[in-house]
Amino acid sequence: MTTPPQPQILRPASYVYGQWHAPKDGQTLLDAVYGRPVAVISSKGVDFAQALAYGREAGAQLRKLTFHTRARMLKALANYLMERKEDYYALNALTGATRRDGWVDIEGGIGTLFSYSSMARRELPDERFLPDGKVEVLGKAGTFVARHLLVPREGVAVQINAYNFPVWGMLEKLAPAFIAGMPSLVKPAPQTVYLAERVVRDIIASGILPEGSLQLVTGDPGDLLDHLLEQDMVAFTGSAATANKLKVHPNIVARSIPFNAEADSLNASVLGLSVQPEDPEFTLFVKEVAREITGKAGQKCTAIRRPLVPRNMVDAVVDALRKELSKVTIGDPSRDDVRMGALVSVEQRQRVQETLEKLGQEADIVIGGGVIGGQSDLLGGDREKGAFLDPTVLLCRDPLTARGPHELEAFGPVATLMPYDSLDDAIKLAKMGRGSLAASVVTFDRHEATELVLGIASTHGRVLVLNRTDAKESTGHGSPLPQLLHGGPGRAGGGAEMAGIAGVKHHMNKVAVQADPTTLAAITREHIPGAEVQEDTVHPFRKSFDQIQVGDSLLTHRRTVTEADIVNFAALTGDHFYAHVDDIGAKEGIFGKRVAHGYFLISAAAGQFVSPAPGPVLANYGLENLRFVEPVGIGDTIRTRLTCKRKIRKDLRPGETRPTGVVEWHAEIRNQDEVLVATYDILTLVERGRDEFDGPAEDAEGGEQRAEGEGAKA
Amino acid sequence: MTTPPQPQILRPASYVYGQWHAPKDGQTLLDAVYGRPVAVISSKGVDFAQALAYGREAGAQLRKLTFHTRARMLKALANYLMERKEDYYALNALTGATRRDGWVDIEGGIGTLFSYSSMARRELPDERFLPDGKVEVLGKAGTFVARHLLVPREGVAVQINAYNFPVWGMLEKLAPAFIAGMPSLVKPAPQTVYLAERVVRDIIASGILPEGSLQLVTGDPGDLLDHLLEQDMVAFTGSAATANKLKVHPNIVARSIPFNAEADSLNASVLGLSVQPEDPEFTLFVKEVAREITGKAGQKCTAIRRPLVPRNMVDAVVDALRKELSKVTIGDPSRDDVRMGALVSVEQRQRVQETLEKLGQEADIVIGGGVIGGQSDLLGGDREKGAFLDPTVLLCRDPLTARGPHELEAFGPVATLMPYDSLDDAIKLAKMGRGSLAASVVTFDRHEATELVLGIASTHGRVLVLNRTDAKESTGHGSPLPQLLHGGPGRAGGGAEMAGIAGVKHHMNKVAVQADPTTLAAITREHIPGAEVQEDTVHPFRKSFDQIQVGDSLLTHRRTVTEADIVNFAALTGDHFYAHVDDIGAKEGIFGKRVAHGYFLISAAAGQFVSPAPGPVLANYGLENLRFVEPVGIGDTIRTRLTCKRKIRKDLRPGETRPTGVVEWHAEIRNQDEVLVATYDILTLVERGRDEFDGPAEDAEGGEQRAEGEGAKA
Repeated sequence: MTTPPQPQILRPASYVYGQWHAPKDGQTLLDAVYGRPVAVISSKGVDFAQALAYGREAGAQLRKLTFHTRARMLKALANYLMERKEDYYALNALTGATRRDGWVDIEGGIGTLFSYSSMARRELPDERFLPDGKVEVLGKAGTFVARHLLVPREGVAVQINAYNFPVWGMLEKLAPAFIAGMPSLVKPAPQTVYLAERVVRDIIASGILPEGSLQLVTGDPGDLLDHLLEQDMVAFTGSAATANKLKVHPNIVARSIPFNAEADSLNASVLGLSVQPEDPEFTLFVKEVAREITGKAGQKCTAIRRPLVPRNMVDAVVDALRKELSKVTIGDPSRDDVRMGALVSVEQRQRVQETLEKLGQEADIVIGGGVIGGQSDLLGGDREKGAFLDPTVLLCRDPLTARGPHELEAFGPVATLMPYDSLDDAIKLAKMGRGSLAASVVTFDRHEATELVLGIASTHGRVLVLNRTDAKESTGHGSPLPQLLHGGPGRAGGGAEMAGIAGVKHHMNKVAVQADPTTLAAITREHIPGAEVQEDTVHPFRKSFDQIQVGDSLLTHRRTVTEADIVNFAALTGDHFYAHVDDIGAKEGIFGKRVAHGYFLISAAAGQFVSPAPGPVLANYGLENLRFVEPVGIGDTIRTRLTCKRKIRKDLRPGETRPTGVVEWHAEIRNQDEVLVATYDILTLVERGRDEFDGPAEDAEGGEQRAEGEGAKA
Repeated sequence: MTTPPQPQILRPASYVYGQWHAPKDGQTLLDAVYGRPVAVISSKGVDFAQALAYGREAGAQLRKLTFHTRARMLKALANYLMERKEDYYALNALTGATRRDGWVDIEGGIGTLFSYSSMARRELPDERFLPDGKVEVLGKAGTFVARHLLVPREGVAVQINAYNFPVWGMLEKLAPAFIAGMPSLVKPAPQTVYLAERVVRDIIASGILPEGSLQLVTGDPGDLLDHLLEQDMVAFTGSAATANKLKVHPNIVARSIPFNAEADSLNASVLGLSVQPEDPEFTLFVKEVAREITGKAGQKCTAIRRPLVPRNMVDAVVDALRKELSKVTIGDPSRDDVRMGALVSVEQRQRVQETLEKLGQEADIVIGGGVIGGQSDLLGGDREKGAFLDPTVLLCRDPLTARGPHELEAFGPVATLMPYDSLDDAIKLAKMGRGSLAASVVTFDRHEATELVLGIASTHGRVLVLNRTDAKESTGHGSPLPQLLHGGPGRAGGGAEMAGIAGVKHHMNKVAVQADPTTLAAITREHIPGAEVQEDTVHPFRKSFDQIQVGDSLLTHRRTVTEADIVNFAALTGDHFYAHVDDIGAKEGIFGKRVAHGYFLISAAAGQFVSPAPGPVLANYGLENLRFVEPVGIGDTIRTRLTCKRKIRKDLRPGETRPTGVVEWHAEIRNQDEVLVATYDILTLVERGRDEFDGPAEDAEGGEQRAEGEGAKA
């Protein structure tokens, strides 16, 4: 066994108020594998009040950009970092993590930037704020209406991260904050700060994000929290003990500063009662538990700590798990033949061993034993100075009365197996974790899955159902995803991160705006029924995306609906529903007479407002919110008003050459008495001029391609 | 002046674990108007741990009901309480409040029950949990999907209320908690607890809410907070100081118990720069400020404390305000000729006077003077023992440098007028309140309104634009509404209440569920694309609402789209868009050929799946989420799959005799290559059997009528 040469000592620097502050001296960090000095850290000399003030100034600039502009920056940044990923993998091994562990951290983190970039451009308007929810009509005459708006908080998002995912943990917080328009000040955990700093160096060097959008503190956070103001916020990942200490900081309390906490939790995985040893789900369960015990050497907030199995399956599961875990090679994680690396430090290993001892009072060790290399030879790494620990499984035979296994977390390759006798007991046991980030339910029986998932839903942030159908595409028990909630109640900290655009909204202030419709439309930049409209001599379909203004409106000519129309429409479409064509049935029906087909009305309305010759409107893209309000009978005369409701610029997609946007039109069809008969919103694809963001054809999109594949045209 | 006879001493009792606990002795409360003993309160002997445990048990029963069942209970309760409102008005006067003040509290509170009942039945499914947001497809093959669910928290909602709105403050918290499925434990403020208790007596006597849904503690909360568990939550309204003390309670912190705080704030009202003294907006501003100073004797969290006026308008505003306030008669609020009553207690008056003194260091009193009857004679009430105080206005000439007027709240009939020179300064001043519940902007200029509203949006929970258009229907600066957010960042406590169904969601836990489509559909009880469907020999349109099952599906016959179809559709509808009828234009267009009208496709699809004879499907109600995915050309052959996505039972509305529900069908049109060409959801109105909830024709609906007026049929 050869020991690699002593690496150069790193000096991860803070980046605050536009300057790098490298530590001259400070705390010395040891690497996880050989226990040799790897870095010196200190935040001495950093002025935290100045850093926050600088961030707030930067926020004012950031808020001038639109969601889409910020999203494009995130994508450019993701591409930039992906090209440099090998630099991060090199440091990753020093933290004790294998390349596979690093993939989750590094490429998972960069993938989160891609995802947020895609989601923002797909789901948010190209604006600086976000109208939220529907228009509320507050008075009968319609002169008083209201709507909620979300606007960026005008402060700094302070992000205090855990040591286990220095890259992902930073980027999954940065991405939604940045999209929202909030600058970040990142305080990584000391143990792995050199990796986070390496990434920040590249981010700053890229010049892609506006200066001040990201600051970094690599040492002690000093008096940082004392200088927070009402519009700042804090997102914390780490131990419950630290979270509880920080969230009662007098300044945070006095100013009602939002404090989002993600604490590790004692996550359960339930093997369904219906599963037999020969079922694919049995193997899926064993492999998933083994993967969660060994991945990142068990140092994951979401890891399975409490596998719950039917009592008669305990022996089979222990045997299968032992076999599975015996295949796990341990050692220097930079080696290809190593499946599990080290814990982050010998101190961390010490804590895990102490917890193991306490767990031993109510559970027996059945696999491993909480010792170093008791089971396997090390493949590289230093047995004493490296923070290695064998995968260890305990068995708690009376879990309903035990306390420790539900409360004490050994943050390492350790899990406590628990037998259960009924689904009710399994639910009870899962809930004894008092709130968890994640759980999984392994069963092919959908009724069992339903009972278990709904049974534990109140105490969990995410639940995975794993079975033969989804196993191949499943991202696994322990993987948070940008689209889904990451967080959990109670023990898990009560926080909420990601969950798609909800994670962006966490960084915004919600305000209800009450006004008359015209003023509210002006404020929200979306047309509202009842608001004044503009009519001019140019047909709105003759205007390009850039020329169309919200509120541009067209009132069409009239059309009298005849019996012939109804007959012909039935004949052409094949829709001979009695309410349209059967005079006897229709008279007994809810309308008391034959009425026009609803789809005839919207088709005839299109005949009224469409401008037939080729022009900037390329296609009918879709339709939303259609409601047929009153029936239209033979002899009724309809007229349609079409008003531009809002505009959504679309980025050019790979291969596309014609820049477009979606224009949403509000349509109202009224009869001869001005009574509303149908209301809906039409989506049209409209040509726009090339702008600064179209640039040359784009690069392949990596992780975000799947996300883009929504609705096209016809 | 005659003093009314000494009223009987009230003994407001606690109602916990199904028992009333009347105090034998305890703290004596004095009435606000004559200063005579009105009630004795104590919670001695109440076992708080038992009350919480009892509430949690009741929660398990409550969660077995659906949202709609709970909503119907709330409506029945609202009707029951409305019949007894005069009993509440009688006690209301003892608190110092006029009948007009009491209307906001009593009928406003009962109205909130009506509103939540309506919103829940209109916007929530008739289920026990709530699928939230869209289905996320997590794998390319579509075997792994996810969706968020909201499920009720399995604990007790502890509600600690302020003295100023004993009825509304209780019911606006109870309503969303109850709809969500959480029982409430209410702790009113002592000063006015006898009024809250009177209402709770009726609620319990009505027997309408399941036992345990509401408990009441009328005295000191003792060790209540020590016994909270992770699934409980706390909603607090009151002073920032108390909020900050309670939210750091070690048990609340250790268990990550959600703590929602509403604190009073220093709310601004801005008279626009564009407004001239002769404009209607000038008068509206003066009347609104006067109303906010005197309403509830200024004891409102949302009251205007800081009127901001253009510097050159200060004198005009002071003159007009003085005139307006001189009309305010003060005295015994039970008298019809009294416009303003007393503060809640002489202690409260003392606090206001002390604050006025501090405010005097940076502002001058220009109206009133913080004394009792300095301006007007009292119309009833005791000048010394009653808690009367004249409306008082201060003028702070240098508000950008002053501190007190932005930080010290005189919680009484007091406001501090501040001049400003530019819109930027007005925005800066409004924000110096460091977070407020509400603000108003009085202007008819929509550009000015936009600048002001967006300028202050980040620091406010609600902003009202008041002008000549909406004044008549406006509910005013200080009125929270069930549909809108009540809460604000920073100084206002950082909480969020109501905001319609969002207020219900606050009482639920959000969980991301990942599974294969069939399992996820089973769990969420909604069909998901890719999930297994059921086909049987009965056409789904032949089934009643009760017979139709989620997942019932029909695959239609095929139809080849011909040139004749396109030509005939264009001729019939008048839609001659070039992409359909102009071979030259269409070849140059994005499809490169003539294609069928999108509306022809959905009409022809209806021709494929509709069952023409009269049956349980009564009407096509509407359509959602239509996207045209691929073009359909001449010669293409289409086929449609229709699958029941979900069912929404509808309550019978007044005058309706035929019970119905809405069935939402997911429709997919595919071509001969099985390529999806259009996807959408259809809403149909379907007959259902009469059930236990239909009963006889319902009573008039009072406050909720407006809310019901959505989409009908055609």
